[in-house]
Amino acid sequence: MSTDTKILRALREVGEGGVSGAALAKDLGVSRAAVWNRIEELRRHGYDIEASPHLGYILRGSPDALHGDDLMARLPKNRVIGRDIRVFTETTSTNDIVEKLARDGVAEGSVVFAETQTRGRGRMGRQWFSPPGTGLWFSVLLRPRLRPTAVTQLTVVSAVAVARAIERETGLHPEIKWPNDILFGHRKAAGILLELGAELDRIRHATLGIGIDVNLLEADMPPELREIATSLRIEAGRPLDRGSLATAVLRELDHLYQRLAEGDFHEIGDEWMRRCSTLGRRVSIQIGDRRISGRAEALDDEGALLVRTEFGTIERVIGGDVTQEKLS
Amino acid sequence: MSTDTKILRALREVGEGGVSGAALAKDLGVSRAAVWNRIEELRRHGYDIEASPHLGYILRGSPDALHGDDLMARLPKNRVIGRDIRVFTETTSTNDIVEKLARDGVAEGSVVFAETQTRGRGRMGRQWFSPPGTGLWFSVLLRPRLRPTAVTQLTVVSAVAVARAIERETGLHPEIKWPNDILFGHRKAAGILLELGAELDRIRHATLGIGIDVNLLEADMPPELREIATSLRIEAGRPLDRGSLATAVLRELDHLYQRLAEGDFHEIGDEWMRRCSTLGRRVSIQIGDRRISGRAEALDDEGALLVRTEFGTIERVIGGDVTQEKLS
Repeated sequence: MSTDTKILRALREVGEGGVSGAALAKDLGVSRAAVWNRIEELRRHGYDIEASPHLGYILRGSPDALHGDDLMARLPKNRVIGRDIRVFTETTSTNDIVEKLARDGVAEGSVVFAETQTRGRGRMGRQWFSPPGTGLWFSVLLRPRLRPTAVTQLTVVSAVAVARAIERETGLHPEIKWPNDILFGHRKAAGILLELGAELDRIRHATLGIGIDVNLLEADMPPELREIATSLRIEAGRPLDRGSLATAVLRELDHLYQRLAEGDFHEIGDEWMRRCSTLGRRVSIQIGDRRISGRAEALDDEGALLVRTEFGTIERVIGGDVTQEKLS
Repeated sequence: MSTDTKILRALREVGEGGVSGAALAKDLGVSRAAVWNRIEELRRHGYDIEASPHLGYILRGSPDALHGDDLMARLPKNRVIGRDIRVFTETTSTNDIVEKLARDGVAEGSVVFAETQTRGRGRMGRQWFSPPGTGLWFSVLLRPRLRPTAVTQLTVVSAVAVARAIERETGLHPEIKWPNDILFGHRKAAGILLELGAELDRIRHATLGIGIDVNLLEADMPPELREIATSLRIEAGRPLDRGSLATAVLRELDHLYQRLAEGDFHEIGDEWMRRCSTLGRRVSIQIGDRRISGRAEALDDEGALLVRTEFGTIERVIGGDVTQEKLS
């Protein structure tokens, strides 16, 4: 843990009570001058840290910009997801960076955020609009011990983690659309792109890319997106703290990923089904050259969607591009 | 096509008949001095090119070292596999290079050879022994339009291509062991490692790594390999021309890959089954934490192995590590 992470963690723990420079120096095993230096550096990053003569240092406010040390300070110590967090001002796509980390043998759980992506991408080679400072665009390196056929479980877990975090931070109730879009009504507020490095029967690594439109206003969106996209700010009617939402997602993801590793997919799948707007509806799913139409019935044990076709047969669907009937 | 590829293609076509520098210059649209320069350069690479006063240039012999331009000169012009061939003296693993090409958006069919690999790898993270100049270690970039679940078809196609090429060049009859080892008796002479870049429902690219022990002698092998590995030279009792075998494999692969793309997997699967030493035997297959035991019965339409267990059920197997009962 870096000194900045330790200082921010301590400041957040004591809250209004404050902590003296002497106590911080002792806890951290560094000099008081070193603490003072780091506090000054954090202030330069936009942290509003008051130095009270009686109470010591008090954290009064955080910058909107994401800060890896601060995000780590807000997460539990024994986490897997977010064990290391890096924030880039700009990158092509955070998935590209994590892919590179994966090939360099970095351990799972590393997370990369970018304030903006020049070539952010969504599923099926689509672009993902990610303007500076308005959303959370990040990727997580995973090394799941799953068979490639069970990898849909990961997208189910991710969608539930994002939906839970949004609910907690905003009080809103987002819906999940198969396989892992997060919607309000028919507008998308978040998307997930899972990319795999695999052999026939073994997943080497999975790069989980998550994009959440947090503080975008309609005016920020290109006209073609306004009908199909929304943001948490638009839905909640107020801007949101991105750092707080980011840590909420990572915390949920860490929790659910560990449950998945323990073989506990069943309950997570049930929660996905309760949150899912696709189940029970008539759907039409394009998978490559094929189109499957029918009623979305359930998830199976591996996280695939079961669709009952007009012929009465059950088709097992992984991924694909879904059009779902609007409820009247 | 490079000038060297054109010259070598012309020399191979005319054979003993020879071709004059003037005719070459005219065909290639370059000066006679340019032809002479390239011929000199090819000689420096080890090509034995005679300049006969009456017949012109005659190719008398080729070096053992692999040469990308020469390999391309030996392949049909309208090929997909081998449209571009690069030969490295040494690399970590040819799969690494092709992975990089894939991410750079290079078209499918590019092939990378290395005379030696410092970190050659086999399936399941195993090392692949690839000493200088004794084998064919190469990787092919593919962008198959297959669902991820049908990707086993690619390994079936690759194994058949390698087996056919070995048969053609040596007269030997290798066996295929599930999923794609090439054996003589119980000793492995070639292996295939397929690595995928994928989304849930889409293969972005596949890196097909092929390793063939061509001219290794038993003395070249580490002691622990001698019981389980062999080479074509050991089996055939004579050294083989690596360039000739390499082009034979690429030619077969090109042919079968195009048939696969046309939806013609069925016959290739049948040929795989005829060549396969696994079918009909009792097998024990380790897949991650699971072990499946039973009788290997057939391939299904997607290239998976169907195993009848002792309980009478059919298990569908993709990949895995197979121990097969020896025939008595």
